[in-house]
Amino acid sequence: MKAHTKYLWFNTKKRREYINITHEVESALSESGIHEGMVLVSAMHITAGVWINDAESGLIQDIDEWLENLAPFKENYRHHRTGEDNGDAHLKNLLVHHQVIIPVTDGQLDFGPWQQVYYAEFDGQRRKKLIIKVMGE
Amino acid sequence: MKAHTKYLWFNTKKRREYINITHEVESALSESGIHEGMVLVSAMHITAGVWINDAESGLIQDIDEWLENLAPFKENYRHHRTGEDNGDAHLKNLLVHHQVIIPVTDGQLDFGPWQQVYYAEFDGQRRKKLIIKVMGE
Amino acid sequence: MKAHTKYLWFNTKKRREYINITHEVESALSESGIHEGMVLVSAMHITAGVWINDAESGLIQDIDEWLENLAPFKENYRHHRTGEDNGDAHLKNLLVHHQVIIPVTDGQLDFGPWQQVYYAEFDGQRRKKLIIKVMGE
Repeated sequence: MKAHTKYLWFNTKKRREYINITHEVESALSESGIHEGMVLVSAMHITAGVWINDAESGLIQDIDEWLENLAPFKENYRHHRTGEDNGDAHLKNLLVHHQVIIPVTDGQLDFGPWQQVYYAEFDGQRRKKLIIKVMGE
Repeated sequence: MKAHTKYLWFNTKKRREYINITHEVESALSESGIHEGMVLVSAMHITAGVWINDAESGLIQDIDEWLENLAPFKENYRHHRTGEDNGDAHLKNLLVHHQVIIPVTDGQLDFGPWQQVYYAEFDGQRRKKLIIKVMGE
Repeated sequence: MKAHTKYLWFNTKKRREYINITHEVESALSESGIHEGMVLVSAMHITAGVWINDAESGLIQDIDEWLENLAPFKENYRHHRTGEDNGDAHLKNLLVHHQVIIPVTDGQLDFGPWQQVYYAEFDGQRRKKLIIKVMGE
């Protein structure tokens, strides 16, 4: 089994941002020379998510509103006694999961018609890191 | 590392259906000849999920009701301005995740006593695709 | 591809408990001799979860309260007609997902600064099993 590892860095302007990283994942796959296997795309922070969904701006706003409804920003999380104010970002991370595995077949991301990979920043305005690991032959 | 890839197609009669695909995953594993590794089972659409849970009909109704409560069908998602009416299905997909990895040990799915793989259709009555990818030795 | 498999057993005193298993995962990796690849950590029961998040006690209480809010214990789940009373634990499992994949680079878990692996028991006071499978070279 071969492995190829690449890191992406983010420092978003807004607290919450949703960034399409499909092209960066394709580049990592191309660099790897791997034809059969998979790509792990995983946030390295506990206040960010990774998901596969549609690149449609109305939907992304719907998702943001829905996440804020189910895991709202609040002053009084116990976690804030540590001096942080990002309790909601930890819960949003748990809700959407922080990683995906993309199958690789014939040297391509084996995606359905609308699948795109997103990095979901829930506590931005600071440097955050993500790992892309291609594994296979 | 060896890889064996298989696709399943669905076209459900109802908008939401939950289909036990454990047997199809076992067949793919058997065809692969792989004894140690894993199976990736992943929806190729952004309005369907894959989960591992119990094959118990009351529970499946509970899950359906719970999903409809947390990610309800509504008329006024922004996504619907594109002409779609499936905004809720995108949110349900994010909530339950669209993929699982099943460990393979000694040529078998290495499952606990009640684990079964389900395809969860949230926007059916159209052709949808799923990938099963067995990887290992 | 090499594979190394290890099982952990739990029998928690309380119904819900959150157990940091990062050290056990590191031990399994060390035993495997694998330097490049990944570790699958997956609950083998459908009433428990596995997540990666912060080892901060206030946050863990926040998560527990949040899960109880979104997937509450209730008497009247249909699943309870089978004689069980753990319908909420099945829903909590679906909400947080039951598995994570940890990348392995240079013989180490390739984690960001705050990432820790937790076993989340939602229906304890009985014997439960988890699989750690290290795969790579």
